Amino acid sequence: MYDTTLRDGSQGEGVSFSLQDKLNIAQRLAEIGIEFIEGGYPLSNEKDVAFFEKVRDLDLGNSKVCAFGMTRRRSMKAENDPGMKALVAAGTPCCTMVGKTWDYHATEVLRVTLDENLAMIGESAEFLAKHSEVLYDAEHFFDGYKANPKYAIETLRAAASAGAKWLVLCDTNGGSLPEEVAAITTAAREGLSDYDVQFGIHCHNDSELAVANSLTALDAGATQVQGTINGIGERCGNVDLIAIIANLGLKKPNYEVLGGRPLTQLTELSRFVYETANLQWRGNQPFVGQSAFAHKGGMHVHAINKAAKTYEHIDPELVGNERRILVSELSGRSNIEAVAGKHNLGEDKELMNKILAEVVRLENQGYQFESATASFDLLIKRVSGTFTPHFETIKYRIVAGDRDVENHVAFAEAIIKLKVGDTLWFDAAEGHGPVNALDAGLRKALTGAYPQLGEVSLIDYKVRVVDSASGTAASIRVNIESTDGKETWGTIGVSDNIIEASWRALVDSVEYKLHREAAASKPALAQTVGS
Amino acid sequence: MYDTTLRDGSQGEGVSFSLQDKLNIAQRLAEIGIEFIEGGYPLSNEKDVAFFEKVRDLDLGNSKVCAFGMTRRRSMKAENDPGMKALVAAGTPCCTMVGKTWDYHATEVLRVTLDENLAMIGESAEFLAKHSEVLYDAEHFFDGYKANPKYAIETLRAAASAGAKWLVLCDTNGGSLPEEVAAITTAAREGLSDYDVQFGIHCHNDSELAVANSLTALDAGATQVQGTINGIGERCGNVDLIAIIANLGLKKPNYEVLGGRPLTQLTELSRFVYETANLQWRGNQPFVGQSAFAHKGGMHVHAINKAAKTYEHIDPELVGNERRILVSELSGRSNIEAVAGKHNLGEDKELMNKILAEVVRLENQGYQFESATASFDLLIKRVSGTFTPHFETIKYRIVAGDRDVENHVAFAEAIIKLKVGDTLWFDAAEGHGPVNALDAGLRKALTGAYPQLGEVSLIDYKVRVVDSASGTAASIRVNIESTDGKETWGTIGVSDNIIEASWRALVDSVEYKLHREAAASKPALAQTVGS
Repeated sequence: MYDTTLRDGSQGEGVSFSLQDKLNIAQRLAEIGIEFIEGGYPLSNEKDVAFFEKVRDLDLGNSKVCAFGMTRRRSMKAENDPGMKALVAAGTPCCTMVGKTWDYHATEVLRVTLDENLAMIGESAEFLAKHSEVLYDAEHFFDGYKANPKYAIETLRAAASAGAKWLVLCDTNGGSLPEEVAAITTAAREGLSDYDVQFGIHCHNDSELAVANSLTALDAGATQVQGTINGIGERCGNVDLIAIIANLGLKKPNYEVLGGRPLTQLTELSRFVYETANLQWRGNQPFVGQSAFAHKGGMHVHAINKAAKTYEHIDPELVGNERRILVSELSGRSNIEAVAGKHNLGEDKELMNKILAEVVRLENQGYQFESATASFDLLIKRVSGTFTPHFETIKYRIVAGDRDVENHVAFAEAIIKLKVGDTLWFDAAEGHGPVNALDAGLRKALTGAYPQLGEVSLIDYKVRVVDSASGTAASIRVNIESTDGKETWGTIGVSDNIIEASWRALVDSVEYKLHREAAASKPALAQTVGS
Repeated sequence: MYDTTLRDGSQGEGVSFSLQDKLNIAQRLAEIGIEFIEGGYPLSNEKDVAFFEKVRDLDLGNSKVCAFGMTRRRSMKAENDPGMKALVAAGTPCCTMVGKTWDYHATEVLRVTLDENLAMIGESAEFLAKHSEVLYDAEHFFDGYKANPKYAIETLRAAASAGAKWLVLCDTNGGSLPEEVAAITTAAREGLSDYDVQFGIHCHNDSELAVANSLTALDAGATQVQGTINGIGERCGNVDLIAIIANLGLKKPNYEVLGGRPLTQLTELSRFVYETANLQWRGNQPFVGQSAFAHKGGMHVHAINKAAKTYEHIDPELVGNERRILVSELSGRSNIEAVAGKHNLGEDKELMNKILAEVVRLENQGYQFESATASFDLLIKRVSGTFTPHFETIKYRIVAGDRDVENHVAFAEAIIKLKVGDTLWFDAAEGHGPVNALDAGLRKALTGAYPQLGEVSLIDYKVRVVDSASGTAASIRVNIESTDGKETWGTIGVSDNIIEASWRALVDSVEYKLHREAAASKPALAQTVGS
């Protein structure tokens, strides 16, 4: 497994990793047992240069960090080329160097002769091989082979003869079909049979065939797959290594993946990378999506337990995921059991049943606790009688309307009245919209009593109409994600009134923060100065 | 192509179609040239029963509507079985009937003998074949074949001998690999070689192989693919028919799809279905995603123009999509040209450019006109100077808050002040939430001047946070669908204030209705009695 989340993955639309993000992901990839971790393209930016410095301080076990770059420029010696120098300076055990396979690409885009292109590949590989293990990424290999098979093989031979240990066949545009990948991978192996090299496959998902193409290349003799976690990457993304690992590890007995480690960390890894990249999870992602083992109502839990294999292609626990029964009377049980462990509810069956009943009641109203674990924690506290509110809502009001009809300028204001202990707090705030105003007003009114709320801010706000069949009277589900800079937590509110739904999610967010701190230490007495 | 978006697709988490949604989608599927349109499961709910009644009024060209159901229950005659009766009552030209292939599933879950299972398949097919063309969906065919190949083939023979014209091999759990699908499809054809039947393939995407599995089954002799638009469906979804159509139509010259029609409507169809299902678009979806042909900055447009094929596996226009150079957008052109035709804008290049500029400006704010064609019509009128407003907003206000904090009872009230001609209208209304109140208030204030607005009601309301990175200050996109009982139309509003966004969508909805009537006949003079 060769992971390029940190390099090719970061080409995806909306993806941007900080230096610390990159280090965190590298650590996780090593822990799960990824052999090659491509960290970046040191010539392209300072952040990647810094990554290769800092990554030396991490203990990555048997994983090898790779720096990525291009072959030397034309008409220049490899040792003088800035890209080559940057690769060597990265000081990684492996370097991955990309070069041109496609005759058209060399002559029409790079404007070099076919011979010069071969020299660029060979001389670059030879130079790098003095410093590290060399992987050669053959860009557009499949398109190039279709256009000029003889030349495409020559480019591989130029790299192999100069010391590249790995030849990686890239379907750069993601347009190849499995039958083409199988045939051309076989042809490449035959064309290099006199060299002691191994083959890799690097697929993009533009035809929704990246997983099939990668698997078929392995069946044709490749031994390395390059991809990214969750398939993030430019355009339609790279192949999703999660699906590759799970398919090979669980369905193809001839393969061993991750050095024989179990695959139970895959779901957590997937979500970690989404969160780090600030991307929405893909709910229906194979193996690790929230919906991957979700079953809609009307189906008896009894039947699923009796014959899970009639509904599930694998046991979800094998990849760290879980079965979810949607809407039915037993939804959320696995969540409840998982969380119950965290709360030391132990064997209290009666309490478990009360929690379950409350979850069912709320889910029928449109609640979903998957990404609102803070609200779920508070629900357990409320049902088990360990919840003491930090404040009491006396009143909230919002007023909104146009300020300037012609230019579509609107306003929103919130008025909040709360009670903390015996003290009344009354405050007002403006906002971009009613929810923004409510959020500002709530924190403003509480900051006197709980100054630590000054650290809290909202990082995400989602609105969903739960049942959109009744027009504007439909139920509205609001999900909020909050952070205090150290932790992030999700809360939820549902109502037919978006203001009320938002209010509930905001109140839970604040209560969660205050309860967590109260649990960590005895809370300070609320100050008694009203505002 | 056999589309089951309206049945299997609606099993997807978070997917719920109204009756009108289903009819709209059926119409689009027919227009694009889908041969079979599975409309629902009439035994399971009233909405699907109503669909099969209403769909008869649509002109679907050569497309055939299919009703879905199960084989008869055990120990019951087919003609007495409620499911069988519901299928016949649907009155469709085709019925799709699902039955059990897997011996384990029949004996352990259904608790019937293997012989009774065969009788259930055969008698059900025989009964249905008297009324319509019968398609037999062989549930778990690949798992069943692996467990007991002889019995699996017998189930197909039971259906074929009773008159089923199509045998559809289902990878119900989505766990099969392409090599298995190829071998087992071939075996099924051989096992049925003495029958004049055709084969279909029905794949789920649990292993991220649904597209590859479907293509390989076609290569092995199947001639029908069952799938959904955008691959929506239970768990990881069904196969995405968009990717199937595009791969077959653009990459496999031996196949003809959509009766030879061009594929340029695929992108619009994809987005229409997402909007109707109120799902986020999948940005990196192959062929039709917003990012599918997006190239990140730093790359010269010049270079892409010179050698697009070095970056793109197909010309994006072939599927109605477009290249995007991130940071400089030209989205919406295909829409504009399509709609321009409808409005007889003819060759007015200058007007086209002005419309284009306005669309780009609004899309940058978060507007999307795919399912808001009424707002788009009004945009064209506004830009071309043919828009005369039917009323002027003087003021709108909403007030909302808690009525009963303890029981989470909230209230919302709207105050509306408008001018029609020289007459001021002022009114107020309550609602379940602020938007519901605004809607009621707007119509109430206008009914004096335009009594025909009494016929109008909202049938759908959708809220989406466009940029959720800035918490509650994010932009909010509101989509509204309205009806007057004869026609339905969609409008849109975007603002950082949900109240303002909703107001814009509501105003467009009313203006669209009034303009359409004004175009049909000279409008009556507004009445002059204020309220």
